[in-house]
Formats: sequence, structure tokens, C-alpha cells
Amino acid sequence: MQVKAIKIATSSPDDVSQLTKYMDDGTINPADVICIIGKTEGNGGRNDFTRDLAMSAFESLFSARLGISRQEVIDRIIFSLSGGCEGVVSPHIVVFSKSGETLTDKRKEKRLAVGIGFTRAFAPNEIGRVAQVEETARVIMQIVSDLKVESNSDVHLIQMKGAIPKFTYEEGLDAAKSGKPIRSDMVFSRGASALGAALALGEVKPTELNDDVICNDWNLYSTTASCSAKPGLERTEIMVLANSPYWDGDLMIEHGILKDMLDTKSVIDVLAKLNIDCNLQLTAKQAEKIVGVFAKSEADPRGTIHGRRATMLTDDDISDTRYSRCVLGAVLSSVLYDPTVYISTRAEHHGPCGGGTLAIIAKQE
Amino acid sequence: MQVKAIKIATSSPDDVSQLTKYMDDGTINPADVICIIGKTEGNGGRNDFTRDLAMSAFESLFSARLGISRQEVIDRIIFSLSGGCEGVVSPHIVVFSKSGETLTDKRKEKRLAVGIGFTRAFAPNEIGRVAQVEETARVIMQIVSDLKVESNSDVHLIQMKGAIPKFTYEEGLDAAKSGKPIRSDMVFSRGASALGAALALGEVKPTELNDDVICNDWNLYSTTASCSAKPGLERTEIMVLANSPYWDGDLMIEHGILKDMLDTKSVIDVLAKLNIDCNLQLTAKQAEKIVGVFAKSEADPRGTIHGRRATMLTDDDISDTRYSRCVLGAVLSSVLYDPTVYISTRAEHHGPCGGGTLAIIAKQE
Amino acid sequence: MQVKAIKIATSSPDDVSQLTKYMDDGTINPADVICIIGKTEGNGGRNDFTRDLAMSAFESLFSARLGISRQEVIDRIIFSLSGGCEGVVSPHIVVFSKSGETLTDKRKEKRLAVGIGFTRAFAPNEIGRVAQVEETARVIMQIVSDLKVESNSDVHLIQMKGAIPKFTYEEGLDAAKSGKPIRSDMVFSRGASALGAALALGEVKPTELNDDVICNDWNLYSTTASCSAKPGLERTEIMVLANSPYWDGDLMIEHGILKDMLDTKSVIDVLAKLNIDCNLQLTAKQAEKIVGVFAKSEADPRGTIHGRRATMLTDDDISDTRYSRCVLGAVLSSVLYDPTVYISTRAEHHGPCGGGTLAIIAKQE
Amino acid sequence: MQVKAIKIATSSPDDVSQLTKYMDDGTINPADVICIIGKTEGNGGRNDFTRDLAMSAFESLFSARLGISRQEVIDRIIFSLSGGCEGVVSPHIVVFSKSGETLTDKRKEKRLAVGIGFTRAFAPNEIGRVAQVEETARVIMQIVSDLKVESNSDVHLIQMKGAIPKFTYEEGLDAAKSGKPIRSDMVFSRGASALGAALALGEVKPTELNDDVICNDWNLYSTTASCSAKPGLERTEIMVLANSPYWDGDLMIEHGILKDMLDTKSVIDVLAKLNIDCNLQLTAKQAEKIVGVFAKSEADPRGTIHGRRATMLTDDDISDTRYSRCVLGAVLSSVLYDPTVYISTRAEHHGPCGGGTLAIIAKQE
Repeated sequence: MQVKAIKIATSSPDDVSQLTKYMDDGTINPADVICIIGKTEGNGGRNDFTRDLAMSAFESLFSARLGISRQEVIDRIIFSLSGGCEGVVSPHIVVFSKSGETLTDKRKEKRLAVGIGFTRAFAPNEIGRVAQVEETARVIMQIVSDLKVESNSDVHLIQMKGAIPKFTYEEGLDAAKSGKPIRSDMVFSRGASALGAALALGEVKPTELNDDVICNDWNLYSTTASCSAKPGLERTEIMVLANSPYWDGDLMIEHGILKDMLDTKSVIDVLAKLNIDCNLQLTAKQAEKIVGVFAKSEADPRGTIHGRRATMLTDDDISDTRYSRCVLGAVLSSVLYDPTVYISTRAEHHGPCGGGTLAIIAKQE
Repeated sequence: MQVKAIKIATSSPDDVSQLTKYMDDGTINPADVICIIGKTEGNGGRNDFTRDLAMSAFESLFSARLGISRQEVIDRIIFSLSGGCEGVVSPHIVVFSKSGETLTDKRKEKRLAVGIGFTRAFAPNEIGRVAQVEETARVIMQIVSDLKVESNSDVHLIQMKGAIPKFTYEEGLDAAKSGKPIRSDMVFSRGASALGAALALGEVKPTELNDDVICNDWNLYSTTASCSAKPGLERTEIMVLANSPYWDGDLMIEHGILKDMLDTKSVIDVLAKLNIDCNLQLTAKQAEKIVGVFAKSEADPRGTIHGRRATMLTDDDISDTRYSRCVLGAVLSSVLYDPTVYISTRAEHHGPCGGGTLAIIAKQE
Repeated sequence: MQVKAIKIATSSPDDVSQLTKYMDDGTINPADVICIIGKTEGNGGRNDFTRDLAMSAFESLFSARLGISRQEVIDRIIFSLSGGCEGVVSPHIVVFSKSGETLTDKRKEKRLAVGIGFTRAFAPNEIGRVAQVEETARVIMQIVSDLKVESNSDVHLIQMKGAIPKFTYEEGLDAAKSGKPIRSDMVFSRGASALGAALALGEVKPTELNDDVICNDWNLYSTTASCSAKPGLERTEIMVLANSPYWDGDLMIEHGILKDMLDTKSVIDVLAKLNIDCNLQLTAKQAEKIVGVFAKSEADPRGTIHGRRATMLTDDDISDTRYSRCVLGAVLSSVLYDPTVYISTRAEHHGPCGGGTLAIIAKQE
Repeated sequence: MQVKAIKIATSSPDDVSQLTKYMDDGTINPADVICIIGKTEGNGGRNDFTRDLAMSAFESLFSARLGISRQEVIDRIIFSLSGGCEGVVSPHIVVFSKSGETLTDKRKEKRLAVGIGFTRAFAPNEIGRVAQVEETARVIMQIVSDLKVESNSDVHLIQMKGAIPKFTYEEGLDAAKSGKPIRSDMVFSRGASALGAALALGEVKPTELNDDVICNDWNLYSTTASCSAKPGLERTEIMVLANSPYWDGDLMIEHGILKDMLDTKSVIDVLAKLNIDCNLQLTAKQAEKIVGVFAKSEADPRGTIHGRRATMLTDDDISDTRYSRCVLGAVLSSVLYDPTVYISTRAEHHGPCGGGTLAIIAKQE
């Protein structure tokens, strides 16, 4: 079994021309594709229709190539599109495909392994509460187990699309009156999903968890989570990326945490673990080895960075989500040379307060 | 003669509390102050009133301390306030004061020297044309000469507030009809000012100049200019910062060009010339040596960076001026540790196309 | 006793040139000024510094004219500046001054009467709760009583600057844990202030009030409130405008509620009560009679208007506060001819859900 | 021959659910559809992808229903989608279909007639010049002639998508040097298209036209044009809407000019010509008669409205295009009751300076 991950720059949200060429020339077998993660150039907010436009193009393409309906395309492949290409962040997709059989014998160097799974459908009043954390952790542990990794420390990225089941205005009022308000929103779904990842990998203990710590106690966090939440989604979609000696190919993944949005040292460290030597900025040639960069950004809620006042959180013209993606995108690109980086914003329980998580996939020789 | 330059973080555009304290405790003598350069937290555009708010506070303070009118404050001190603290860029001011006599004997190490001057008032039809370039160059050469620098290569920053004299709608129409449209706007005033700096220091030859190359031939540029232009201003205000063996104190200035907005290598090089050793990010302690960072940012007009598409120039929700300040501010801060950096945007003839200029002032031991 | 109200268009937030002229020529006696209400051209949000810039100019002017300190200016005169001149809304101020003695005999027609007052300082945990409502009502009733109005129906505008006392992060956490979270924010302070006005004038009964209905049960509302809330303010500043037979002058005030942001019929009705006949749009000459227009705008939380979907609340590029001021400003201006209207946004308990309050002051012959 | 025009509210840019139902129940015959005009909820700028998303949905639907390719759909039907639903403007489409034969005998009342046509492909250097005006006029006159209208005064709306052929950076430089700079941009293409409409209908005389008056002499204008321009489009797409006695159905169209964005009187006048009596605001029932409202909005370049300063043009946070659509949309909706109005912005030579054009289609009994 081996994973291919191919990065493709896009000229617009619905640009599938290069992906189509790769299908035509055999580089990508549409039947093997398991996931597409990408950045589109909208505002990343509620009225960001670039993700829908991209989905429309992907559904058309895969539907035609695989001879299945658009709904079947969505059921078969995980699409994780994040809007917001602020500053230098360049629109692109990373296409993951999987083929072959699991190795029966261990190989010497571990290689990128990818597994996917889904939680059960959540009730609105489970979101942002321990129920969501535990179910998320259960599914992650199951996927990890199937991947045949040697240790939890070989798991490097848990990419999630978090559930936000709908509820009526009346249900909301009733829940509020009962003293247990519904938390089915982006903030809580992201936060509980990240804690699910932390619980699954032993970074947080069950005894540390209760409803009150979620989106409150920032000392509890995952080092591998990357969750966006999607209104209307009933179950959380989960993709686990790890290194396993039972998987083949030429890709490896590593991760680290960003202590803050200027933490270039941690980027260098992750590169080193991928056998890429960098002390300031990769060369163009080195940059070609990197096929995926996945980071969470966040404007520090304390309103400072390196002891200085930042104004991101009090600017009512431009959202902090746009600023923080712009900042981290610029900093990562300044180290990695290539600005096709995936930055997703707001990082509740994703790394320490004001920081975030970072995972990088690179080719090995 | 020596220059003091003190950096002060501000809690709002009109925060002069720390400046007042420094006056009270003798750290800053208001009578010695020659210039204040700073970043305020507005949008940097036409409706950015944070600069006016800051000016109101400065005028009140200096007027009271020096016993002069507000107009006299403005005539005496150059205020160069740039709006736009996007991302991590942190609001601050750098207060320059000058005291003592010019040394009659050379000292061993050169030290920061600062001179100011003003062009004559421009007619609207001179702006963005050779007339503006030549007059700007003339004044710069005069200031440089007065500073007693050993060579043009000791000049590191030419900070300018460019003239944009007003003209009537009818004058504009008449000029357009005559085939020589009025260029009295920000773009042309910045561009011609930068070429004035380049001409003064020999970076551009007189024979290379004519009206058509201004804001057109980007191969012509200054490596030391930093110009903002101000509607209504009739003459250009100029401040030259250089190193001279006839000046005393503990400050030095160096400069470089940024090839693009991710060019961290050039930052490292400037630091090295200031005797500050850095390979990735300064320590907090090292960062304390730096009292001023002055850079020009620009979204590359070709729409790419490192070969990848950037969307800054086609985003109609957020201006490229805000994005480019955010990007360069993040990148500089990631190297310099401290996000109190002065970034001014749009860099016509300031460094190469898509790049900009950078000057840093640091304490020497 | 009589009230003068003079509307002055401004060319920038700190433009006091016309106000200065009026002081010079005796039109306005600075010692008589009790209140200035105005619109400045910022974003109306947290980083709107146009109000500070305006305050700086007002404080300078009145301090010089009255020979008092800036602090005394603020203590003496109520300044109610609202940022946000979206669309056609034109920056302006209305200067209220009061002079003469209260009439001992009733006059035939009632005339504009103005009274001001202040609540006691609030504790953070009182804001948005019944304590704030009751104290606000108490002060309003006291002011109304002092004005010698004949009936509550003669009260037409209760302009308030609502308190938002500060609290520490820890106090916030403790309060949340205790089950009674601190509500000291703009939404709750505006909402409770409006309910205070409703309670004072009998529009809401004491028995209908408890902490849970505040910012929840939109059927409870004031028809005369216009409250903005200001972070850091400890007591609510209140100005009551009414018609009284014991007051002199040539001004009258009337009010109505706007059922929604397109409710032109209600504007016509208020004009009629002011003896101004209008069926579509005032003439320029009629418009000169109007010296003040005060309205609250709100994007309907149900996301529709006249049964059609509105997108104001889901646009993450532009705030609904800016949209709603733009919409109501345009609609009012289309009826009133003159776009110098004061629109303040978010209208919790100010008129019905999705609507707002409207008061107009006009000269009488 | 008769035209059906059906207005459909949409719940998102790609919402074709109601259109699909109308096809299913026979209300709309897909083979008869000639044009869809609509508003989508993007920013109306360069990065507004909502139009592409809508197009994707329309192409899918018509391609499936008509058994033709997506390209054939585009070649067959004119889609005129305008981004920007600011304030109350509600996303919707108007679907025009045409069926039957031209009447051989005149009917008593004239009815809505619609014709479409295309200019030849333009060279970049023709745009914004007399060549574009004349070719546009030629095609309009041809369409008008085919419609069998009795007089030019029966033509009420000339809806155009203006050509903006591409050119290389080098071609641009060469043209600039030759003294005849390329004008192939939105401003000039809209302006010249509108003048084409004016020329075709005799509102502007051939002798009044030369390259210099285009986008310069605002006294020359069309009263019926509504043009948006599209980068990359090589030929201008034109739709003429008129009343003709040789056309059947129950629809009529009328038009007027808006003197400024607050000109409600002109709206009332157009309604009167459509036999709809209104003095302030239509009732919900009256509003049902109206199937299409098409207006051009513009922030007055002189920076004032009704003699008061407007700040729309100097706000660098929000574009004047968004403000002007918001303002006119609110004003029209306040008269017409229903906010499903089509507002397209920037109105060069569309009505007088600071004003615009307005056409309304309504059912007749």
C-alpha cells in the first residue's frame, strides 16, 4: 500500500485543468483518489462561495471519470477545502491517492500512511462537549490502529472536518433555559475535535476532560489536529496521516507545534525530521521535495505577540482570521520558499494559546 | 553632534504617555527632537484619521513643552506617520533628537548622522516629472554634503514625505488636453521622489531620466529611498540618515534591498553589517539593540511570488497595500523578533520591481 | 428656558471651523452648550478613532473658550459621537444649548425641553440585568420630572451613552462558573438601557422584567430610546428630549417607531406631527426646518426584509452595522432630502425586532 | 410572439431549485429561454466568484434539459449576472423566454418585445473609442428595427455586457508610447457602450462624438443603457427591451433617469407609466405586478449629494461600488416594497453625472 500526494497550483477555484491532465497521462488514477485538501481564494467565511465553486468542478470531473453520481463522489472522497489565500498564500490543492496492498513485512524506513473514518452523527447538544471529544477520539484510535503504526508518536496530522448539526431557534432557547446551552458552532466543534485528537493520542488524559474545560482551558491541546468545522455537517470526517513501516512509497510526514505565529525555529525542526536541511530559507530545488504543508493559525487572544501589542483582534474592517492566515502564510513561505501552503485559521486546542499545529509531507530519496 | 533615536510602543494613535515620561525624566529633551517616525493603526488610506489623531497629540505636547504654537511645532519637527499596522506590525514611534557639535576630528567608527531639508514648492505639473526628480536630488545632495559623510555609500535611508500640490478640476482637464496630463498624485510623487534619491546618490544617471521612464521603467531605482506622499503638501520634506565619522553617539544605520517580500537573506545581511549575528531569528536580547526598522513593501505587479500566483492585487475586499504591509511585517518580525517595524507601502522605484528598500538602525557597543 | 439646536456639516472629524465662527458671531454661546450629538466618518467599531479625533478638537475649543480644563469640558458637556457615515450619510454635528429661565406660565404650544442626568456607577455584573434597567429608569424619571412635561407621551427621545464597566479576565471566569456570567458588553448595555427607557415611560411593566428577557424577548421595547454603549464608561449618560409648555423657543420634537428599515410611512407620520407636510420627499426649503434626525438601525436577525432574503448578516467582508446604517441612512435621506441624519446601529429593545426608533427635531413658525 | 419574464428569488448563487420546478411544471420551457438577468451575492469585483458558481449551475441545468453542451448553452442564452447584494438588495434572477410568432396585425396596447444581438469582435484599441460606440449603435439599431417598435421612444432598456478584449503588457506599452493608450477596461467599455445606445436612439448626435468626450463629457448620456463590462469578452452582447404593438403577452416596460441616488420621484413616474399608482411605497400586492427592476447606480464623482458631503469615494475600507448599490437598492426597495431589484454600478454616460438609468417591467391587466 502506498500513498501518492501531488500538489497542484490552481488558477481559479474551479481550475481542474492540471488535475485533468494528470488523469489523462496516468499520473493520477481517479479511482485511487481518497482525499483532496486545498486552499481557495475566498474570505474563508460564511459568504465564501469559492469552496462551492471548487466542489462543483471536482464533482463534475470525478463523476465523469468514475461514472458515478455527484453524491457518490462526495461519499467516496474527502474534500477539505479552506477558503482564504491572504497575502502570499497561493491557491492550490494536494491530491492524495492510495494503491497497492499493505506490506506484510516491515520496511526499513517508515512511509506515509493515510486512513479515513467518520464519527457517528452527533446531536446538536453533544457538540463542544465531552460526548464529541470521546466519539472523535474513538474513531481516531480505530483509524490509527488500522494503519499499523508502531507508536502514537508516528501519527503527525489528524485532519478533520468537524460536525455542526443544525438546530432550531426554539431548541436553542430551550437548551439555554435548561442551563446547558447548545454549542453547535464552529468554535466549539473545532475545539472538541482537537481535544478528541489529543485524547486519542494520549496528549490529554480522560480525567482532565469535562464540558467546562472545552474552549476554556488552553493548556490542554493536540499537537497534530487540524480541524475546520462545517455548518450542517452531522458527522465529523477524519483523516489520519502517519508514518508506518508497513506502507510503501517515497513520502514521509512530520509535525511540530508553533509556539506563536513567528515561530520559524519549529518549522526548521520539522524540516530536519524530514531530512531537509534548512537554516533560513529553502532553495527552489529543496522546495520541490515538499508536497504538503498544513498549519493552523491564530491571533493570540491576549492581543500581543513577542510582548508587543497586535491590533488584529480589534480591527473591525478586516477579520483576525484573514490577518492570521496572512501572517502565518508569509512566515511559513519565507522559510519554505514556496507559498503553496495550507493555512486554516482559529486554533482552539490546536497547539498552545496563540500558536498552532504544523505538519509537512516531503519526498524522501 | 550626536543622534539619539528612541523607540516607543504606543497603546493608541494619540498615546504620548511614554514620550511625556521621557521628557519628564530627561531621557528626551523636547528642544532637541528633530523628527518622529511612526506607525499608527489606521488603514493607511485616504480615510485614515489615526495620523491626524497622533498629530493632534504631538502638537499639544510639543507646543506646551516648547512654548510655541502648533504651527511652529510642525515647522520645526518632521513627523512621518504611516497608517497601517496589519497583522503583527505593532504601533510605535521612533523619536530622533540631535545635540552637541559636529566633531572636528574624525572618530574611528562612523556613527548615525541625520540631516533634514525641504524642496522648493512644486507646481502640480512638475510632480511625477523630471523637474521633481531633479529638485529632490538637489536638496538631498545638499543635505548629504552638510552631513560630512565620507562617501555616498554611507547614506542608508532617505525618508521623504512627497509633495502633492493641489490643482483644480479645470486645470486637470486643460493639462490632459494639452497632452501633458497632471501627475500630482501619490504614485507619481513617490516614484519621482525615489528617483530623486537615486539620482542624488548616483544610482541612476541623468541621461537615463525623462518623464516617460517615471513609474514605467522599473529597472531604475533607489536602494535607500522611503517615500510616502501627502495630498496637499506643496514641498517635499526630506530626512537623510547616514553614517559619518564626524558624528558621535552609539547608533549606526545600514541598508539593503529586498528582492521580494520573502527575502529574509537580505535582512540577515543588513544585520551583519550592523554587527548583529543572526541566522534565523534574533533573540529578545539582541532585538533590544534595534531602534528602527524602515522598509517599503509592494505586491508584485506581475501577480506572482517565487513563481506562484498571489491574489493580493485582485482582491476587491482588501487592498494590496494592507496585504503587502501585513506580509512584509510578518516576515521582518519573524527575523527581527520584535514586530515594532515601520513598513510603508507601494514601492515605485524603491528597490527592484516587487521588492523594496530596507534600513535598520542599531545600537553599537 | 429655551433650547437652541444648530446643525453643522463638518468637513472632517476634527472640523470645528463653523462651530468656531458661530461662537465668534454670537450664534452659539459656548457657556450655554449642554450637548453635541454627531456623526463622524469612521467604521463605528473598536478601531474607529474618528470619535477621539473629534473629541480632541472639541476639548481644545471649549477649553480655550470657557477657560476650563479638558476634563472639565467633558464633565460639563455631553458628547455623543457615533462613527459610521456609510453611503450618503453625511458627517455633521447638532449643537444643543440652553438658556433663560423656566416659564412660570404655560405657553400655548409646547416647545423642546432638554434635561440631562447620570446613573450611579455600575458594577460589571449589573450590566444587562434588571439592576441596570431599574437604575436607568430611575434617573430618566427624575429628569422627566424636572422638565415639567405634561405627560410621558411628550417625551420623544432618550439619548443614552451606556455604561460598560471593565472587569478582569479572572472576574469573568469566576462569574461564568458561578452561573451568572458578566454581561458588561455593548449588546447588553444597549439592551438594558433601552428597557430602562421603556420602564421609565410605562412602555414595559416591572412585572414583565427579569434578567432572562433582556436581549431575548424582543416584544419588550422602548419607542424613544437611542443608546450607544461605550467600553470603560462606568455610569450611563442620559439626555431626555421632550416637549413642554414651560419651555420656550421655536423647536419641537416628535418620534415614532420604524417597523423595518424601509418604513418610510412612519417617517412621514413623524413629519406630520411636526407640522411638515410630505408625501414623498421634502423640498430643499422644507428640509431646512429640520435640525436633528435621530434613528436606530438594525439588520433584521431573521435575515429577511419584506419577506425576501437579506445577506447583511452573513457577509464576512462588511459588517451588518455598516450595512444597516447605509440602508436606513439612504431611506431616511430619500424622504428628508438632506442626508445629515444621525443613525446609530443595533437596536436591541429599541422598537420592534428588525426595526428601530426615530426622533426628529424641527423648527416651528 | 410574446415574452415571459419570471422573477425567482434564490437562496444561494447556485440555487436553481425553483427554476427547475418551473421547468418541471411547464411554467418555463427551457427551449424558449433567451436570457437570464440576476444578482448574486458576491462583491461584484474581480474576485467575485459567485457569478461563476451561478453559471456552473445554469450550464448544468440547461445542458441536461436541452441535451446540448455547456458551451452551446452559453452561445444560446444571454446570462447577465451582476455580483453585489449590498444592504437589502435580495439575490434573484429574472428569466426571459420568448415564444410564438410576431403578430401580423397591431394590437391595441403595446407589449414587451425583446431582441438580442452581438457586435463584431473588437480590437483592444477600439474599446472606449468612437469605433466601439459606432459598432454598438449599429447593432442596437438593427435589433430595434427587427423588433418592429413604432418609435425609438418605445425602447426602454438596452442591457449590454461590454467587450474588454485582452492585450499584452507590451502592446499596452507600445500603444501608450504611440500617444493612443489602450482603453480596454471596464470604465471605458461601459462608457462607450452607453454612448452607443445613446447614438442608436438619437440621444447623442454623431457630430458630438469623438474619442476625447468618452468618459469625459458627462453631458452626453443614454437614458436606456445598462452595461456591465467583462474582462476577456471580445464582442459586446446586447439585449434590447422595448414595447411593440406586434408583440403579445401581459408585460410592459418603461424607463426613466435617476437624477441622483435619492431620486424617488422618477421611480414614481416610471410606475405611473406602467399604470401602477404609487405615492410613497407600493403595497405587497402591487409589488407582485413587477417582474423586473433594472437600475444603474453611481457615487457622484463630485463627492456630494443634495449639497452635502458624501464619503463613499474616499473610504478605503469599502468600495464606492458597494456603497452605491447599497444606497440605490435601499431607496428603490423603499418605494417598490420588494428588494429583489437589479442594481449594477458605475454609470458612465448612463444618465446624468451622479445619477443613472432605471427600467421597470410590470404585468398589465
